[in-house]
Amino acid sequence: MGKLARKVAIVGAGMSKFGRLFPLKRNPDLWIDAWMAALKTVDNGIEPKDIDACYVGNYSSDLFNHQGHLGPQMANLVGLTPKPAPRFEGACASSGIALRQAIIAIASGIHDVIAVAGVECMNELPTSLVTDALATASDVLFEYPAGATFPGLYATVASAHFHKFGTTAEDLMRVGIKNHINGKENPFAQMQSSIKDMMEKKKVKLESQGREVPDWKDEFDYLKSSSNPMIASPLRLFDCSLVTDGAACVFLAAADVAKNFTDTPIWIAGTGQGSASLSLHDRDSLTSFIATREASRQAYQMAGMKPKDIQIAEVHDCFTIAEILAMEDLGFYEKGKAVDAIKNKESYRDGDLPINTSGGLKSKGHPVGATGAAQAVEIFKQMRGIAERNRQVKFDVERALTHNLGGSGGTCVVTVYQK
Amino acid sequence: MGKLARKVAIVGAGMSKFGRLFPLKRNPDLWIDAWMAALKTVDNGIEPKDIDACYVGNYSSDLFNHQGHLGPQMANLVGLTPKPAPRFEGACASSGIALRQAIIAIASGIHDVIAVAGVECMNELPTSLVTDALATASDVLFEYPAGATFPGLYATVASAHFHKFGTTAEDLMRVGIKNHINGKENPFAQMQSSIKDMMEKKKVKLESQGREVPDWKDEFDYLKSSSNPMIASPLRLFDCSLVTDGAACVFLAAADVAKNFTDTPIWIAGTGQGSASLSLHDRDSLTSFIATREASRQAYQMAGMKPKDIQIAEVHDCFTIAEILAMEDLGFYEKGKAVDAIKNKESYRDGDLPINTSGGLKSKGHPVGATGAAQAVEIFKQMRGIAERNRQVKFDVERALTHNLGGSGGTCVVTVYQK
Repeated sequence: MGKLARKVAIVGAGMSKFGRLFPLKRNPDLWIDAWMAALKTVDNGIEPKDIDACYVGNYSSDLFNHQGHLGPQMANLVGLTPKPAPRFEGACASSGIALRQAIIAIASGIHDVIAVAGVECMNELPTSLVTDALATASDVLFEYPAGATFPGLYATVASAHFHKFGTTAEDLMRVGIKNHINGKENPFAQMQSSIKDMMEKKKVKLESQGREVPDWKDEFDYLKSSSNPMIASPLRLFDCSLVTDGAACVFLAAADVAKNFTDTPIWIAGTGQGSASLSLHDRDSLTSFIATREASRQAYQMAGMKPKDIQIAEVHDCFTIAEILAMEDLGFYEKGKAVDAIKNKESYRDGDLPINTSGGLKSKGHPVGATGAAQAVEIFKQMRGIAERNRQVKFDVERALTHNLGGSGGTCVVTVYQK
Repeated sequence: MGKLARKVAIVGAGMSKFGRLFPLKRNPDLWIDAWMAALKTVDNGIEPKDIDACYVGNYSSDLFNHQGHLGPQMANLVGLTPKPAPRFEGACASSGIALRQAIIAIASGIHDVIAVAGVECMNELPTSLVTDALATASDVLFEYPAGATFPGLYATVASAHFHKFGTTAEDLMRVGIKNHINGKENPFAQMQSSIKDMMEKKKVKLESQGREVPDWKDEFDYLKSSSNPMIASPLRLFDCSLVTDGAACVFLAAADVAKNFTDTPIWIAGTGQGSASLSLHDRDSLTSFIATREASRQAYQMAGMKPKDIQIAEVHDCFTIAEILAMEDLGFYEKGKAVDAIKNKESYRDGDLPINTSGGLKSKGHPVGATGAAQAVEIFKQMRGIAERNRQVKFDVERALTHNLGGSGGTCVVTVYQK
């Protein structure tokens, strides 16, 4: 148990622009944009006839778009009918699961090449209903009727972390500041502005309106102001990821056919998946996610690696506190120590362990079912050395990791990549 | 491509009672009932510690129950936290996909034993909203706004079949009559009455009310009466499957560990999955489902079998016309010839090729996401010789098939079983 019978590689990957794109773009449009972007990265080209199946990750087109049964529709749009087109769901880890199941399917010998899709078009609903749709990924019998939507649930996690480890609101802000600096360099990101940019813009605006311009001396001043309202204490607006429309596409191939497509495949070294009770009150701990610990344990074991072997990572920062938990639960830092690393800018692009070079869910955006596949896209680009603008890390990335979380940690998928 | 690296067996399988069970039973209750029923069939017992993952098939708890992210919840209820718990969706083929992906995962070497769940609790919604929720598995951009819910779409298919092959309303009725005769013998079925039983009951009722008792000389007379109203011409009420709450559980194990659980495993000989455009108007044919042809082609090839090798089958009779299409598209009969076989009672329990000995979706019920797994439960029972009441076929079943369809044929999963 726990070993794959065949080696699997990524031979191409790309994503659509992330943003508030509905009604200009719906799932079909977003998916085609991602497919076209991924095609461009396949050195020797890839055609529908080369592909055996389309594995679709999506959280809830049912609720967001009143369209279920997305698998065959996505497959049909790119010429893959009548091939297998299953859909996978695990809340915000949906396309992490699609990626994992595709890896497993190729390893099993049943398929050689699979197109993995992650798609979500959230802005078809007004924001209040988006929050409601997302809340169905919590425990609807216990948490939802208590009004505990995800900002509230992650606020509970943050409060517990504050209490246990002395973490502060400033620590959370540091995560957001760093991710916005990264997102500024990502042409596919929803928000391509640093917090400093936003602060300056706000100053100019207030000035032009003849209103009083506050004397914000740094980002923290700005983030503590009314420009960053409290959502669910201690989480403010800029502690929350975005409501996003977007898609991502990853082409996976078995070792023996990967060479047909490229001379520089990115290998899947390990995959792991864990679960937990949906409801927080059923957990042993509020400050550590067992699903992350279990998923990473499996993935490291399969890869024959330890946390210290990982050079860059994309982690699931649906809220700033979630990035801190991930840094700890993935074993990068001891419990309660991630905040020091953040303070020391170790997770910056030029730090010891760059995290979320894409901008993360916070700045790149979080089309929930597309996020897992989009994380793989960023790692693919970083390992290939093709990350856009000034986002490319300055060393050759040999080993990387993605961490894709569902709900308040009910599902986690961890993938380890190797060159 | 197309071969599994490891052999996989069913070592236990069971289902909950199917019926209109909400609010007495919700998904968690239904799943536990199915789990307990499946446990009883594992000769040497099975415990959570023996199981590596929980693969959950569900169409839309999002819409039916306003609860997404079902995987971890189902896993948690049976003591499988923190193991992997992905959810799979392909409309009414959702747990057929879960079963297939579990087969693939075991073949890949990543898991040895998987609990496959199929769950759906539909009656939380009023019937009109059930029809609407199901309609999201059609093409929501083109079919849904035209009012083409599934009875309408399958009525289109039936009309085309009538036109092309001379099929009649009586031919459809014969499918329902047979399936209700089978369902009568299934203690887990939603409707445990033959059409004749219902006819007699109606007569007694009318008599007791002092109303005129029609002179129905056979089931056809009854089925042509106002007791069987037209839903979408030519489909009447008794051409449609049921709105059902239910769950099913299948324990799968790799060849090398299957012997720990039983001396009589039921082997998976082949699995196939196909897809088609969601919308009927994008298809080449209205009278044949390409997803079924493709899924069965793959499954037969993997099994090294031909249609004539299959001794019994559970096929997806969401509407009576769908059973006829399945009999043809699976290669059991030539196009247009299945109706003769039905007339000759070849698909009856004591016929040459018994079909839907469980009662099928028509009589056993159709909790959409649970149906694929429940089909496997019936085949398991028939191959083990443990089908209840008078439903057990009279010969030793060596080779069998299940056919699980999603939407109006947008997804199809075919599984071939062998002793």
